[in-house]
Amino acid sequence: MSIHKNAKIGKGVSIGSYVVIEEGVIIGDYVTIGHHCIIKSGVVLKDHIIIGDMVILGQRTSSNKKMARKPSKHLGELIIEEDTIIGSQVTLYKGSKISEGVFLADYVSIREQVEVGSHSIIGRQAMIEPNTSIGSYVTIQTGSYITADTIIEDEVFIGPCCSMSNDKYMASGKGIHKGPIIRKGAKIGNNATLLPEIEIGEQAVVGAGAVVTKSIPAQEVFVGNPARKLV
Amino acid sequence: MSIHKNAKIGKGVSIGSYVVIEEGVIIGDYVTIGHHCIIKSGVVLKDHIIIGDMVILGQRTSSNKKMARKPSKHLGELIIEEDTIIGSQVTLYKGSKISEGVFLADYVSIREQVEVGSHSIIGRQAMIEPNTSIGSYVTIQTGSYITADTIIEDEVFIGPCCSMSNDKYMASGKGIHKGPIIRKGAKIGNNATLLPEIEIGEQAVVGAGAVVTKSIPAQEVFVGNPARKLV
Amino acid sequence: MSIHKNAKIGKGVSIGSYVVIEEGVIIGDYVTIGHHCIIKSGVVLKDHIIIGDMVILGQRTSSNKKMARKPSKHLGELIIEEDTIIGSQVTLYKGSKISEGVFLADYVSIREQVEVGSHSIIGRQAMIEPNTSIGSYVTIQTGSYITADTIIEDEVFIGPCCSMSNDKYMASGKGIHKGPIIRKGAKIGNNATLLPEIEIGEQAVVGAGAVVTKSIPAQEVFVGNPARKLV
Repeated sequence: MSIHKNAKIGKGVSIGSYVVIEEGVIIGDYVTIGHHCIIKSGVVLKDHIIIGDMVILGQRTSSNKKMARKPSKHLGELIIEEDTIIGSQVTLYKGSKISEGVFLADYVSIREQVEVGSHSIIGRQAMIEPNTSIGSYVTIQTGSYITADTIIEDEVFIGPCCSMSNDKYMASGKGIHKGPIIRKGAKIGNNATLLPEIEIGEQAVVGAGAVVTKSIPAQEVFVGNPARKLV
Repeated sequence: MSIHKNAKIGKGVSIGSYVVIEEGVIIGDYVTIGHHCIIKSGVVLKDHIIIGDMVILGQRTSSNKKMARKPSKHLGELIIEEDTIIGSQVTLYKGSKISEGVFLADYVSIREQVEVGSHSIIGRQAMIEPNTSIGSYVTIQTGSYITADTIIEDEVFIGPCCSMSNDKYMASGKGIHKGPIIRKGAKIGNNATLLPEIEIGEQAVVGAGAVVTKSIPAQEVFVGNPARKLV
Repeated sequence: MSIHKNAKIGKGVSIGSYVVIEEGVIIGDYVTIGHHCIIKSGVVLKDHIIIGDMVILGQRTSSNKKMARKPSKHLGELIIEEDTIIGSQVTLYKGSKISEGVFLADYVSIREQVEVGSHSIIGRQAMIEPNTSIGSYVTIQTGSYITADTIIEDEVFIGPCCSMSNDKYMASGKGIHKGPIIRKGAKIGNNATLLPEIEIGEQAVVGAGAVVTKSIPAQEVFVGNPARKLV
């Protein structure tokens, strides 16, 4: 293990082999950390958290000269609340907050300025982009992609392999960047495609494989390409 | 290296740097293990297996309070048969069986209660959910998602980025969980979407990007959204 | 650290914990290497490169007996040019070239015989198959899949979760393997599906969720399944 002398480790903490804990990390009580994990400066872990193997916490943003979104220099900490369970091979960025009781499966990656509400589930390999809000008791299944600047309210269900985008003009430098808004309790079928700036109403349902090009009212069911009301 | 004194290692085994081998692991003869691999308790490796770098074998299931599928406490071992080749960054769960001569590419993840038949190929980043049966000489290409409770027979071909689901009511608590059945020799084009409980007949073909909402008879070709017989 | 005595390390190089550097590796000046990285034989890193954590450079190809594409024995080196930024959990194969100023995000995987042009961006989890050419100032967003034998010209934009294929007959042993050709400045929407051998003309636009079954002329906009000219 390589644990910095200024890291603060609680009582009853279990740490696997070849773990790196950098300067200033704060770890609560009864946390379990798997083998080969890397916990970087700027990470705060509360109590009773379970972390798998080969997890990276506190990743920093960077960019090359072509990139539109420049990383903020003042991201704040990565804060992970009590009773969270984190799988293996996960990467979480500095500047986000994971609420209590959340489940993050293997290979999940969450960028900066994201908040995940309590008791939500994020499936394996799901990728969450920056500046996104995810409510409580949300399910995002395996391999789904949540674009930047997105709002997902409580109790939303997103099936596997869904895709979203936030830039109508595809990097032309026109318009704003705005992802979808998915209202409380809406359900999105597997491999659905959501376009930028649309709103999916409360309890609405999007069928598997649908391509949603405009907003869907509450309670309604839309399917097809382009998605139309199911009749 | 961190190798438990009760692990059983065969002859001619090559082990990379920073490898962790936990208590009770059984490794056959002439196995090659890359750097940074983690082999957890409850793993049995037969002879002549090649394993890349940063591989996790014997991952355990877990869940949070929202999750419907609770992990079984009696999963059995992860058994990997002779001549299997495993890429890098792979995660395989305890309680599954990988048959002889299988190729698992980088970033593949296979959950518990899965059987992969002999000489099959699973492409990079493919995710296989629990309680799923995959036949022999099957190809699953890069990034495809195999949902839980699925049956894939021998010689099936699944192109890249395909998606499936197993829950018609999307976590409403209604109905059963049942993935597709894909019969012998069927072919599924890239980025196709398969709905729950459908059957793809023997030697049937699903076009790229098709959304399959009902079963397809043997030998037929279906394309479009929703998928219809190609005429 | 485990650094082979015949590796050649430049001045001002920073190396994290538990890094493995194999025989014959050449590393330029002012390179930063994160924790747990593995740099295998046959890798050449130029100056001012930044590499995240748990990165594998110089991965080798392999195959099982079912696989059509047998790995070449003479792949050459993996060459990474100046000012490249590489995220975490990335895997790059031996026999490819990454040009100056490229940004490769977390979980990117690039196979052998690929060239990535200068200042291009490849998003998280994107998978690039062998024998593929990617131009300069290209953007490939998160989770997109670039099949083998593909040509992507300069300034192309590929949204998130796009999919391509290169084998019209899906492993039947008929025909050739040929991916799409995407001409200069074309834009592909998220979760679009491209079939083998098609050409997307200069500055053409493919809508989100479109399924492109035939070539698209320059400047035109195609949407739907199958994709048709937007009118």
